[in-house]
Amino acid sequence: MPKASAKRKTKSRASSPKSRKHVYFFGGGKADGNRFMKDLLGGKGAGLAEMTNAGLPVPPGFTITTEVCNIYYKEQSKIPAGIDREIAEHIRKLEKAAGATLGSTDNPLLVSVRSGGKFSMPGMMDTILNLGLNDDAVEGLKRRTGNGRFAFDSYRRFIQMFGNVVLEIPKEAFEHELSAVKKAHRPQEAHRGPIAEGFREVLDTDLDEAAMREVVDRYKTAVKARSKHPFPQDPNEQLRMARNAVFRSWMNPRAIEYRRIYDIPDHIGTAVNVQMMVFGNTGDRSATGVGFTRNPATGKKEFYGEFLINAQGEDVVAGIRTPQPIGELEQAMPKAYRQLRNITTRLERHYRDVQDFEFTIQDERLFMLQTRSGKRTGYAAVVIATDMVAEKLITPKEAVLLVDPESLTQLLAPGFDQDQWRKIPTATRGLPASPGAASGQVVFSAERAVEWSQQGKPVILVRRETVPDDIHGMFVSQGILTATGGLTSHAAVVSRQMGKPSVVGAGSLDIDEEGRTFSVGGRTVKEGDFISFDGLTGEVKIARVASMPSEILQVVNKTVASATSEIYQRFERILSWADTFRRLGIRANADLPDQAAIAYAFGARGIGLCRTEHMFFGEGRIPIVQRMILAETEADRRKALDELLPLQREDFYGVFKAMHGDAVTVRTIDPPLHEFLPKREELMVDIARLETAGKTGAVLDEKRRLLHRVEQLHEFNPMLGHRGVRLGITYPEITEMQTRAVIEAACRVHKEGFHIVPEIMIPLVGDVKELRDQKAVVDRVAAETMKAQGVTIKYLVGTMIEVPRGVVTADKIATEAEFFSFGTNDLTQMTFGFSRDDVGKFLRIYQDKKILDKDPFASIDIEGVGAIVRMGVQLGRKTRPDLKIGICGEHGGDPASVHFFHDVGLDYVSASPYRVPVARLAAAQAAMSVKVGD
Amino acid sequence: MPKASAKRKTKSRASSPKSRKHVYFFGGGKADGNRFMKDLLGGKGAGLAEMTNAGLPVPPGFTITTEVCNIYYKEQSKIPAGIDREIAEHIRKLEKAAGATLGSTDNPLLVSVRSGGKFSMPGMMDTILNLGLNDDAVEGLKRRTGNGRFAFDSYRRFIQMFGNVVLEIPKEAFEHELSAVKKAHRPQEAHRGPIAEGFREVLDTDLDEAAMREVVDRYKTAVKARSKHPFPQDPNEQLRMARNAVFRSWMNPRAIEYRRIYDIPDHIGTAVNVQMMVFGNTGDRSATGVGFTRNPATGKKEFYGEFLINAQGEDVVAGIRTPQPIGELEQAMPKAYRQLRNITTRLERHYRDVQDFEFTIQDERLFMLQTRSGKRTGYAAVVIATDMVAEKLITPKEAVLLVDPESLTQLLAPGFDQDQWRKIPTATRGLPASPGAASGQVVFSAERAVEWSQQGKPVILVRRETVPDDIHGMFVSQGILTATGGLTSHAAVVSRQMGKPSVVGAGSLDIDEEGRTFSVGGRTVKEGDFISFDGLTGEVKIARVASMPSEILQVVNKTVASATSEIYQRFERILSWADTFRRLGIRANADLPDQAAIAYAFGARGIGLCRTEHMFFGEGRIPIVQRMILAETEADRRKALDELLPLQREDFYGVFKAMHGDAVTVRTIDPPLHEFLPKREELMVDIARLETAGKTGAVLDEKRRLLHRVEQLHEFNPMLGHRGVRLGITYPEITEMQTRAVIEAACRVHKEGFHIVPEIMIPLVGDVKELRDQKAVVDRVAAETMKAQGVTIKYLVGTMIEVPRGVVTADKIATEAEFFSFGTNDLTQMTFGFSRDDVGKFLRIYQDKKILDKDPFASIDIEGVGAIVRMGVQLGRKTRPDLKIGICGEHGGDPASVHFFHDVGLDYVSASPYRVPVARLAAAQAAMSVKVGD
Repeated sequence: MPKASAKRKTKSRASSPKSRKHVYFFGGGKADGNRFMKDLLGGKGAGLAEMTNAGLPVPPGFTITTEVCNIYYKEQSKIPAGIDREIAEHIRKLEKAAGATLGSTDNPLLVSVRSGGKFSMPGMMDTILNLGLNDDAVEGLKRRTGNGRFAFDSYRRFIQMFGNVVLEIPKEAFEHELSAVKKAHRPQEAHRGPIAEGFREVLDTDLDEAAMREVVDRYKTAVKARSKHPFPQDPNEQLRMARNAVFRSWMNPRAIEYRRIYDIPDHIGTAVNVQMMVFGNTGDRSATGVGFTRNPATGKKEFYGEFLINAQGEDVVAGIRTPQPIGELEQAMPKAYRQLRNITTRLERHYRDVQDFEFTIQDERLFMLQTRSGKRTGYAAVVIATDMVAEKLITPKEAVLLVDPESLTQLLAPGFDQDQWRKIPTATRGLPASPGAASGQVVFSAERAVEWSQQGKPVILVRRETVPDDIHGMFVSQGILTATGGLTSHAAVVSRQMGKPSVVGAGSLDIDEEGRTFSVGGRTVKEGDFISFDGLTGEVKIARVASMPSEILQVVNKTVASATSEIYQRFERILSWADTFRRLGIRANADLPDQAAIAYAFGARGIGLCRTEHMFFGEGRIPIVQRMILAETEADRRKALDELLPLQREDFYGVFKAMHGDAVTVRTIDPPLHEFLPKREELMVDIARLETAGKTGAVLDEKRRLLHRVEQLHEFNPMLGHRGVRLGITYPEITEMQTRAVIEAACRVHKEGFHIVPEIMIPLVGDVKELRDQKAVVDRVAAETMKAQGVTIKYLVGTMIEVPRGVVTADKIATEAEFFSFGTNDLTQMTFGFSRDDVGKFLRIYQDKKILDKDPFASIDIEGVGAIVRMGVQLGRKTRPDLKIGICGEHGGDPASVHFFHDVGLDYVSASPYRVPVARLAAAQAAMSVKVGD
Repeated sequence: MPKASAKRKTKSRASSPKSRKHVYFFGGGKADGNRFMKDLLGGKGAGLAEMTNAGLPVPPGFTITTEVCNIYYKEQSKIPAGIDREIAEHIRKLEKAAGATLGSTDNPLLVSVRSGGKFSMPGMMDTILNLGLNDDAVEGLKRRTGNGRFAFDSYRRFIQMFGNVVLEIPKEAFEHELSAVKKAHRPQEAHRGPIAEGFREVLDTDLDEAAMREVVDRYKTAVKARSKHPFPQDPNEQLRMARNAVFRSWMNPRAIEYRRIYDIPDHIGTAVNVQMMVFGNTGDRSATGVGFTRNPATGKKEFYGEFLINAQGEDVVAGIRTPQPIGELEQAMPKAYRQLRNITTRLERHYRDVQDFEFTIQDERLFMLQTRSGKRTGYAAVVIATDMVAEKLITPKEAVLLVDPESLTQLLAPGFDQDQWRKIPTATRGLPASPGAASGQVVFSAERAVEWSQQGKPVILVRRETVPDDIHGMFVSQGILTATGGLTSHAAVVSRQMGKPSVVGAGSLDIDEEGRTFSVGGRTVKEGDFISFDGLTGEVKIARVASMPSEILQVVNKTVASATSEIYQRFERILSWADTFRRLGIRANADLPDQAAIAYAFGARGIGLCRTEHMFFGEGRIPIVQRMILAETEADRRKALDELLPLQREDFYGVFKAMHGDAVTVRTIDPPLHEFLPKREELMVDIARLETAGKTGAVLDEKRRLLHRVEQLHEFNPMLGHRGVRLGITYPEITEMQTRAVIEAACRVHKEGFHIVPEIMIPLVGDVKELRDQKAVVDRVAAETMKAQGVTIKYLVGTMIEVPRGVVTADKIATEAEFFSFGTNDLTQMTFGFSRDDVGKFLRIYQDKKILDKDPFASIDIEGVGAIVRMGVQLGRKTRPDLKIGICGEHGGDPASVHFFHDVGLDYVSASPYRVPVARLAAAQAAMSVKVGD
């Protein structure tokens, strides 16, 4: 035991050479880093460096790299002295650039300390502002700004943030003190906030310097009482403590939860940005704001954002005060506004993407604090990408890379039936933060949202404002509705990212979270009542409203002409660009003609998996299937099969037609036969009831007979039982019937001019002899059928590779198989030893304990199942270099998995019809990206 | 389709170069081949060559190689002309050596045509004698021998064999004709056979030349009627047809069945031996016989065998006439007898093994027809091997190689309780052909034997004589009893090989196979009645008799002193020799102290698998376990675990003590928890009955409560569900309790002076993080426990490698695991996707269709599962070159699997206690043999 872990430690030390640079400076028009160093500097640090180099007005500062975060964890929460010295040197450099000194009583340097990983995690990480203030420096700040109220407000904000984030004192402790002071300082005249129409509270801005001094004193007392130490006065000590707190925040439960949802690995760590403070709250000539170069909800080309006069940046994002639209800045501070528009336009051009920026105006001087690619809805992504190509800002190739494949599903999400929607009165209107139609039962807490959604209820999470702790509740909700906050508030940002409809800042909502009600326009809505809202218009209605297919789906279903749908045109434009870049073929998993038609309309060119047994569930077919299963003799079984033959043939014919001649892979019967029979335990209970009631006669006898057969077919582990090729081998007459149906249907479409090549796929093969047995049956029946039909067609016989033994012996199987299709659902089951139907019992615990990063049934486990797939490809192609290989598990529609399948050299992926657009786009992005791993 | 098979064909042609020799001659003191060419010449051909080279009197002939058999199958039942020419040349050579000519009317050459593969398959393959006879040659034979009756008897035998084997005319057709002639020739005076006491039949020897001529005419007519062609008169044509029939017989159902039982591959093919006929049936100066250089049933050093005066070899083996003991040959033909003893003694010395030989005496001249290693019982094998070492005939190393590991299990098979046995009167006594005690219900056909044994009935197959078609019935029987035939009859040879008790030639049995009864000594025994017999004494009794442990088991159980048991002494001598040669360690799978004690006595040094959950089934424990499972809170669960702790600790203590300080691998809880609860469907039925009967109250409520929890735990595929490490991760308190019990018990035995190193094994690990999680629990609890006990002991934490993902990521798992143990049961399940509990539904069909050669749960599937094991070993040792690796699936006691595990470089195998001797011996043989494959 100790041996192995000692080894690990030695290794990790070895991988962080002392000579490496750990701190990167930016300021004075020059930065050590640049935008391409996100891994090391995080997104924020890389952006600050890039902006600095571009000559933009960025407050100077430095970035402590993500590597230091990892060292911090590996060295058990310690930072080596060498790195500490490197940081100290950069503090001196920053003091020089800022013309101010940490802790100075004349001109104190104040800094912000911010986290910033490679991927943006909005609101997930803790930030500390105004660091450097102490009892001396606050006087220096007052002296320099001539604004005592501002100086002490800054100090109390610092103590509050530092106390909460670094010293882990609950926020309530500070809020309690602030309330006490506010109560004592209730102002003469109250004024109303721009939207808030509820109870009038005392605002921070109502407090004067004396009151702020009192707050500071009370805060310091609170800190001492809670942390057993006085509030630290040494700015260098403050900085060290803050830095470590940022590192610690990387592993707080919110951050972990966020990374789990967005598949961000834990090991990449966060950087720490230390930057000279600038103040949007020095008075009415100051302001702070955030914005986007285009509308992130609709994609519309408009300058988009919000600002607050006399406020610090956190006030906008936190959504506590409802800010003003950014257009109003033009009146308030015309010069700064023009400079901002100019800079952001340059930024968009420079980065060739929509920018999400933060700025502060201190005494009418503009500072840029951050820029990054703006998160957007799927809808906006498509609009922006196509617009930017039209504007010749980017190439079609760049446009394809600008759209997140997964976000396309948002465009296919249902909307309201507009006729019904229009008739219902609008209860209120909020800010349309994320498009889509949401209808569900009101809940007021994330916990209740999770609980009810697990019971299958559609829920809408209604909150005054959301906080990062709400993530899991938002994840399960149909939509999110908040009363405060703007379009860049937490609720807005997160819901857009999740592709969930949201309406925020619906200020007329009077929410009683405790009492679990809200009232609006005189009506009271209780927990559990239905409401609906439209995330594109911001309208909220108190009613349950039926939804309807999205516009794109209406085009696909031909209820709307494609020419009249702008968004469909854009959607198809992106996808057809994508098609020119991808190498992977895209097929669909479709079992019936109507599914095949939708898949074709979405761009699938071929069916990768047609599950013949799904046809057995068609109307009136189950009794025939049951007769087949219950047959005691081969002759009786054949009789039932003869009845199924024309039905299957018609289905195949329909699927083939829907595919216009593209290849269709038909899988012979796969599931264990007892899936088609009544459940064993239900029969047992029925019989017990009849017996106990003293009944006799035909019904009981029939049930007993049925139970007898069901018992014979019963399996302890049906997933590992008598299914797949094992059925075909024991009942070759089933394979015969299915082959006949496929070939007859194919001959018919051939006669009609579609030269389809059906691919007959034998499932669950683990040994070449299994395939050889079934191939002989297929070839014999196909020859007979073609002769009878007087048509000769080409067809292929291949196999699903879905049991590990099939992979290990793939070289032998490829001597018979003309194609492989990886069945990654079963392969995942057997590689992990996880039953897909039972994994729910422990999967959540596995994810909580970080044993599994993600559900391996949703996104392929590259390390394990992926290695198996790679082996199967290599062995199969060793025997047959031109072997056609695809994948037809659920992973075919998951972008990360598609990327892997591209890398590993498959010929195509097959996805469910509605995921076909996602797969097309993901395949294009995979082809453009550098191949990762071997 | 056609592409792939065309490829295969091309390849196979390429691998049989025309230049290769296909026919090997022997005769005149010189042979082309030798004993080491069994692959090419088969066992018989290699033996004939070797004997010829040794100067023994062997009739000349030639061997067509096994390669030709494969060519025959690959070329769709054709032999290339080149090979045909090569055979023709050798016929000429043989005519020269024999001084006779095929088809000659003066001195015709007669040959036998016999099959002979690498492995002996007694009675499985068809043989043709007297080939070369036709209407002309038969007159030549009469002329040369002066014996018309003999000449025509030979001719009619030839027609009968050729007609049956080559032309596939049913035997009955010939028997019908023979009976007709016999009826017409009923002799004046009947004499009684030596043993046969029943109805007196007309014997073949009663027929004179005229009668035989009539038989020949009738046979020829029958052949023409059945085959639509006259009986072929051209001897070269006869030979070609016979040769091809031998090749065809390789694939007859009997031969396939035999190979399936004995794991002989299909692809090795059979050779064909064409040899000059010698005749044991030319009169009273001729004889034929078979024998062993030592007793193959008991191992006693005695000249052993039987002969028949004036008979052909087939008459002895077929068991139609009961032959004389070979000792009587000394009186009958003293010179030939001395020569035979002299030759066979030389043969045993030459081959350094017991020889099974066939000879014919033609007119007092001895010919050796075959010699090969004699099959023997496990008992005899041990006696012979130890005797031969004592005689300095062989070395201990050779002795170890002389015993089939599997056959050792025969020595552990139970015998009768001698007290009870002695009190029952003996109904009859037959020849003791294969030792062991058999008791069961009488059946008269192989089909009924199979049917009843599938119903769980113990059966004894009673037959007048067994035939190769009976193999499957013999396989399932407790023992075999026949009325005719000698110690080398089919029944005797096959039963010895199977390790089944048998008594043969019990002539006083009057068997009515049709009426399903036999009578003996005035009593009638019907199908289904119980009988018992002792295969070592030949006694048969009409009663059901309880069996008792074998002598060796009595020594192991210390009810008999080892010093007084000769067979135990020999058994242990062989095994201790084996121990000096093997590299693999041998452990046992044992869950409780008494099992561990037996395993230790059998030579296991260490426990490779102690299944802790088996301890849960101990008396009074299930209710505690159920309380643990049903607990709603961790606190309640801990309470139940606290009760289990002392019980598990005591069991571990007992197991550790039984192992005298050798390592014990304890596996933490593995099976899904619902295995310990009442069955779901039973509860449902109970509730349905109570409800239907209108019952209410506590019983119903309790059942509903229980059902609720059982439903929560219910799984669709428990084998792939919440079990193994997944339980430990979700309920770490179980791992804690089990660790505490192991470490407390280990501390206690340490205090008593046994420095055991317990190995705590986490099952079902597929990802290193699972192991890391559990290892942390184990290490923490172990440290706490050792501190509390005041003892520091060494222990290891490792894992079972049993899910494919564990193999694929074995390099990562080895960073934490201090040992691996392959769980090949689960690994086989998941690699094939076969549920062990359900595979019975199709395994038989798979074996019948030759898709699987053998049950992969009985003997490891080297191609698939083996490849996976090899990968796991390589990856694990890449990380940790000294990683201790074992295997603890059922395969640990299977010789072929042990061989593979040796090859792949494991450190030990762990077998069930009673298979430990098999594993010891198999491991030694593996170490001595050349490593096969990479």
